[in-house]
Amino acid sequence: MSTVAAFSDADHRYMARALQLARQGLYTTDPNPRVGCVIVQQPPGQPGHIVGEGFHVRAGEPHAEVHALNAAGDKAKGATAYVTLEPCFHTGRTGPCALALKNAQVARVVVAMVDSNPQVSGQGIELLKAAGIDVQIGLLEQDARALNPGFIARMQRKRPFVRLKMAMSLDGRTAMGSGESQWITGPEARSHVQRLRARSSAILSGVDSIIMDDSRLTLRADQLQVENADIVALRQPLRVIVDTRLRLPLAAACLREPGRTLIMTTPAHSPEKRAKLTAAGAEVHVFEAGSDGRLPLGELLGWLAENEQVNELLVETGATLAGALLDARLVDELQLFVAPTLLGGEAKPLFALPGLSQMADQRRLSIHDIRAIGRDWRIIASPEPD
Amino acid sequence: MSTVAAFSDADHRYMARALQLARQGLYTTDPNPRVGCVIVQQPPGQPGHIVGEGFHVRAGEPHAEVHALNAAGDKAKGATAYVTLEPCFHTGRTGPCALALKNAQVARVVVAMVDSNPQVSGQGIELLKAAGIDVQIGLLEQDARALNPGFIARMQRKRPFVRLKMAMSLDGRTAMGSGESQWITGPEARSHVQRLRARSSAILSGVDSIIMDDSRLTLRADQLQVENADIVALRQPLRVIVDTRLRLPLAAACLREPGRTLIMTTPAHSPEKRAKLTAAGAEVHVFEAGSDGRLPLGELLGWLAENEQVNELLVETGATLAGALLDARLVDELQLFVAPTLLGGEAKPLFALPGLSQMADQRRLSIHDIRAIGRDWRIIASPEPD
Repeated sequence: MSTVAAFSDADHRYMARALQLARQGLYTTDPNPRVGCVIVQQPPGQPGHIVGEGFHVRAGEPHAEVHALNAAGDKAKGATAYVTLEPCFHTGRTGPCALALKNAQVARVVVAMVDSNPQVSGQGIELLKAAGIDVQIGLLEQDARALNPGFIARMQRKRPFVRLKMAMSLDGRTAMGSGESQWITGPEARSHVQRLRARSSAILSGVDSIIMDDSRLTLRADQLQVENADIVALRQPLRVIVDTRLRLPLAAACLREPGRTLIMTTPAHSPEKRAKLTAAGAEVHVFEAGSDGRLPLGELLGWLAENEQVNELLVETGATLAGALLDARLVDELQLFVAPTLLGGEAKPLFALPGLSQMADQRRLSIHDIRAIGRDWRIIASPEPD
Repeated sequence: MSTVAAFSDADHRYMARALQLARQGLYTTDPNPRVGCVIVQQPPGQPGHIVGEGFHVRAGEPHAEVHALNAAGDKAKGATAYVTLEPCFHTGRTGPCALALKNAQVARVVVAMVDSNPQVSGQGIELLKAAGIDVQIGLLEQDARALNPGFIARMQRKRPFVRLKMAMSLDGRTAMGSGESQWITGPEARSHVQRLRARSSAILSGVDSIIMDDSRLTLRADQLQVENADIVALRQPLRVIVDTRLRLPLAAACLREPGRTLIMTTPAHSPEKRAKLTAAGAEVHVFEAGSDGRLPLGELLGWLAENEQVNELLVETGATLAGALLDARLVDELQLFVAPTLLGGEAKPLFALPGLSQMADQRRLSIHDIRAIGRDWRIIASPEPD
């Protein structure tokens, strides 16, 4: 399995194409991973050429390899298959892809990364090898991993990939002291946030943010600015509201939107309110509060991965819940949209980090990217390990 | 004077060289402007070549044109002179440069920008034109203006160019709630700040910041990272401390450093404290407080321009004075050094802007540049007009 391979320029080119194909499923494969496949004939002494390609579009539809093999037909025999993720071994609705590749008599399979699920990892590769197929692993692996941070987190860490999005002024403020906040950032930044929602399995928010802004937390086809926006917007990400004391108003706009709303609360709240919220369309789930009286956030994330197959979780919330997630080391990525404006020292802060009182306790970040988004700036960062 | 000229590629190249020369005086010409000059012979049908060049190094020493003419000697006759600022008309220690160019019998003078002083603007050019010399104006004018924002502000607006430097965490915090603050940003950012000090005539700070950090507000040759750092550090920028209630401790470190310290205060404070501070080396100046009990900041800036020839003023201070300057529309440029860290909502804010309570009152900024400085990021911005 740990075959060390020297990959050719052509190998890189074809795998890059497979990754490009996989990306076309960015907004639709959930909860499945995004996967692309390219099948290439390389007659000796002649330039190679693609005879079939495909990507996974939607759960329940064929995997990338099946699309590519269908397109290649007989030409798959003796060819090389480039796949961004180890071909599956399980018998799902579409049959195991490893078996399909074997049956098509491909000569070689190049895999960007092995399956993230530790329980099946390597099995597809073993099947291919046992059939005498030359298998090479690890080409453009980092790129392949970057395509599916949520799927990988769910498989390996049993929790979603947590992406915290915040919009702030240049002096680190999210809203005026009064709570007045909408439209800090411009339309380009808001369109970016729509695309972050579209790639996420679920959106997490605190009840205070929902009450303050009456947020709908939905995809809006007219703001997405992607191909097939209408189709993408058919899948509304799960809305997850942290509401320890069950304060969500029955009239909340998000309860009237397409898609599901989960309310995560603690026991001992009025069964009547629960019943009413359920009648209004919400699904209420109860977690035992921790010793601090708060919802156990780590447990909540594990629950979402296990029960709702949440891969990427987008957090759109205020300083308290954002600070609590950071404090609990549960944030994988920060996306800060920074508006070129100052709101002043009495405006609302970005993060409540109540335990933080000494420089030695500061939370260091790695900044991966800063770029202009219309009039605003987007900073992508991740918390450094302690 | 408003000659409209079509400049050639060669003209652009030589003026760019003159600007490059002028920049060599960035840290030394104060309170004079940075000026460069290139003298070029362009025999018909042959490529031009530089016969003399120079820049103004230090007040009291020759102007750029004199250095360039000395280098060119007889070759200046019939040549073209490229100057980044209109040649002077006044008779200073080095004689008027316009006259020197006339006497050298140059045939053509290309000027990037006219003199900023409204009282003498155009006089040097008139002298040249009256002598039959071909004068063209406005080549790379924006670049020439960018070299001397402070000199231009002092001449045209009778106050310094005010550059507000702040170091902050990604969530807009300058220090912990306790005041603990040093070393938010890394050594590269601190070296940049040293160079900001070196190009400034004066540094302005509030007494609270001085008390909190016992800042010295000095140039340190070993941190400057410029050529001839030892020579540059010989000119310590004027230290100006806003101290309404005359609270500066007599033991303040800045009073023991080379260079001058001005304390700006209001009347009716202990003559004894004033005398002690004066004895400790400070110069105390008194301004009538405004109706809000504060020092009149606009008047203070005018005073610094008029009495101390302050061109570029670097503000290094805390949220209160920084907020008051922003509030009074007295800040020309913001340089924010952003450390990739989070200090949390209880840490100290960047700006106190007490009058700001509605989104409609937010202070919009234009961002001109964002770049990595070591591990940190630097944002250069300017407040937009209301």
